[in-house]
Amino acid sequence: MDNFTFHNPTRLHFGRGQIEQISSEIPTDAKVLLLAGGGSVKSNGVYDQVKAALSERTVIEHWGVEANPDFDTLMPAVRICREKKIDWVLAVGGGSVLDGAKFVCAAAPYAGDPWSLVEDFGSSITSALPLGTVLTLPATGSEANSASVISRRAMSLKLPFMSPHVFPQFSILDPETTFSLPPRQVANGIGDAFCHVVEQYLTFPTHAAVQDEFAESIFRVLIKVGPKTLADPTDYDARANLVWAATCALQGLVGCGVPHDWSSHMIGHELTALHGIDHARTLAIVLPNLLEAQRATKREKLLQYAERVWGINAGCEDERISQGIEKTREFYETIGIPTRLKDYEVTADVAPIVAARLAGRGMGAIGEHADLTPDRIEAILRAAA
Amino acid sequence: MDNFTFHNPTRLHFGRGQIEQISSEIPTDAKVLLLAGGGSVKSNGVYDQVKAALSERTVIEHWGVEANPDFDTLMPAVRICREKKIDWVLAVGGGSVLDGAKFVCAAAPYAGDPWSLVEDFGSSITSALPLGTVLTLPATGSEANSASVISRRAMSLKLPFMSPHVFPQFSILDPETTFSLPPRQVANGIGDAFCHVVEQYLTFPTHAAVQDEFAESIFRVLIKVGPKTLADPTDYDARANLVWAATCALQGLVGCGVPHDWSSHMIGHELTALHGIDHARTLAIVLPNLLEAQRATKREKLLQYAERVWGINAGCEDERISQGIEKTREFYETIGIPTRLKDYEVTADVAPIVAARLAGRGMGAIGEHADLTPDRIEAILRAAA
Repeated sequence: MDNFTFHNPTRLHFGRGQIEQISSEIPTDAKVLLLAGGGSVKSNGVYDQVKAALSERTVIEHWGVEANPDFDTLMPAVRICREKKIDWVLAVGGGSVLDGAKFVCAAAPYAGDPWSLVEDFGSSITSALPLGTVLTLPATGSEANSASVISRRAMSLKLPFMSPHVFPQFSILDPETTFSLPPRQVANGIGDAFCHVVEQYLTFPTHAAVQDEFAESIFRVLIKVGPKTLADPTDYDARANLVWAATCALQGLVGCGVPHDWSSHMIGHELTALHGIDHARTLAIVLPNLLEAQRATKREKLLQYAERVWGINAGCEDERISQGIEKTREFYETIGIPTRLKDYEVTADVAPIVAARLAGRGMGAIGEHADLTPDRIEAILRAAA
Repeated sequence: MDNFTFHNPTRLHFGRGQIEQISSEIPTDAKVLLLAGGGSVKSNGVYDQVKAALSERTVIEHWGVEANPDFDTLMPAVRICREKKIDWVLAVGGGSVLDGAKFVCAAAPYAGDPWSLVEDFGSSITSALPLGTVLTLPATGSEANSASVISRRAMSLKLPFMSPHVFPQFSILDPETTFSLPPRQVANGIGDAFCHVVEQYLTFPTHAAVQDEFAESIFRVLIKVGPKTLADPTDYDARANLVWAATCALQGLVGCGVPHDWSSHMIGHELTALHGIDHARTLAIVLPNLLEAQRATKREKLLQYAERVWGINAGCEDERISQGIEKTREFYETIGIPTRLKDYEVTADVAPIVAARLAGRGMGAIGEHADLTPDRIEAILRAAA
């Protein structure tokens, strides 16, 4: 097991009716910026619950944070924080709203160019406004970690940043608030959480037995409850297990003391930046082909994955690995996420463009062994055509 | 899944050489109370590493915290904190030293009778000195939770308390510092951690899929690495997995959103208070017979436990349950922990005494269904003779 530091101070309130906890989490004299996306939280009752919990607090609302939150959408919120002397930010929505809020919290007190906070991956962040979140879409894990991904469409960019200063102070996870989500968004959440675990698990063995078992646990839960909660969105327990699995997938325990990959995410971000494909769908396009390309270096973990997650014990080792990868592709297809570029009307011409863009930002050799070079990234995307 | 709040702010530094992290965790101008047990940390090099990391800080040492830390041993440390205006407490040792330090941290700023903080299970604690820990014995999980168990031998008492104020600010877990432990203490740690997971898992189903999987994960890791690390104490990976499994067993994720039992602990504490039996050994005495006595109400989880943890699929349900319980007893015996009262030269006469003592402190009906009444507790201990 590798050395690590684990720290996750976010207080998580999970379950029915937990939105009322906001009233004890945010000081009554706080001036609050409520950050949200579209109007869905108004139609499903979440907004009313949030307003009731905020009661007498001064609240300024800022709506319109989109999927893949954009720098240019968020900067007005940053200016509001500065001009109105906001004390707290409350993000109400899915991972995009939460990621956007993390940027707002970090940028508001920052004197320099806010985009530089993203460009240097968060390393310049030394303080941030306190953040609370009400999560309405299980997917990204942003409710319980210190990471964020920000897009800048004007520059065709989508970049991650991390900072311990942007851990939410608290997050509310009420599975009932997710009942009204469109199936496509639920499926995307399942697929995103699944890939988060892959990125922290499917590398090479470091004898981290607990982490491996926890990762395999989350895979099995997602495989079991994913199709179930899509078929019956108001089955509370199935949805609750999806919500909690998605949070546990990226709150730190699965990934501590082990190598990480994140290549599928890095390649996928480019597909979103270039073609606007949903984040989870880019992962479904990249992942099976990336695993195929890396089957030699990921060999031991692919065998473990095939056996412990998919119950594949028969056949020679190469066959078991192939079956495990095929099961992964089938899983995405089963929950309604196509896994080929052509399903999104994108051709293989994108392959060299993505490889060159990554190389241009210093990602010319990614993956746990830094062996995914531009030519190999290009080959992965060509195989995904 | 039941509603829950999960919060665990402790920063965990895990791995070789991590003791040096103390130097960045405790302010350089802090006046530190170093709390420790016997001299083992001096002979195994831990003390030297700690002193080097504390470097120029003012340090007052207080030694002699015993297994099952005693109120009367700890009160002199409380007085030192007050008289010397201590800013930070650093606990160096196993769960007993850490539990004792939590009491010292809470009692030092408390104006009332310190014992009342224990008697009311921690509910009066409103502040505490900041605590850091260097864990040298994987077992209790105290390094990453807000619980403590304090004994008062003068009154033959052993009582738990909890408070969010006593979460350690940080904990250091270097598996190498545990290489020199006597096998008996390592075995006790394995047995203690195993029972912690039982108490949070073997109740009744609440469709908490992730929590169940995480619990079963820790069982499987302990079953696998327990005997291995006892046989080869300097196998780093085996010991590292034991240390991390013991921490994860009681840091909160396994037990959130599910019913808890803790009856084996409550009954076991009385055996320690009356006869001085090691904590983990009292659990080994109580647990198999408690599971037998509760096989009706724990039926569904006992079946799940037998199958997923021990791989027991054959036979009728009652047989599978019996086999799962027997496997549990065998596991304790395999790691060198006898499971009968007579192995500790204690007779069944203790049974009514324990039952009466628990009832006398308001624990006349314990367990997840509050159905373990004095007569049933007595029967469990008679069966353990």
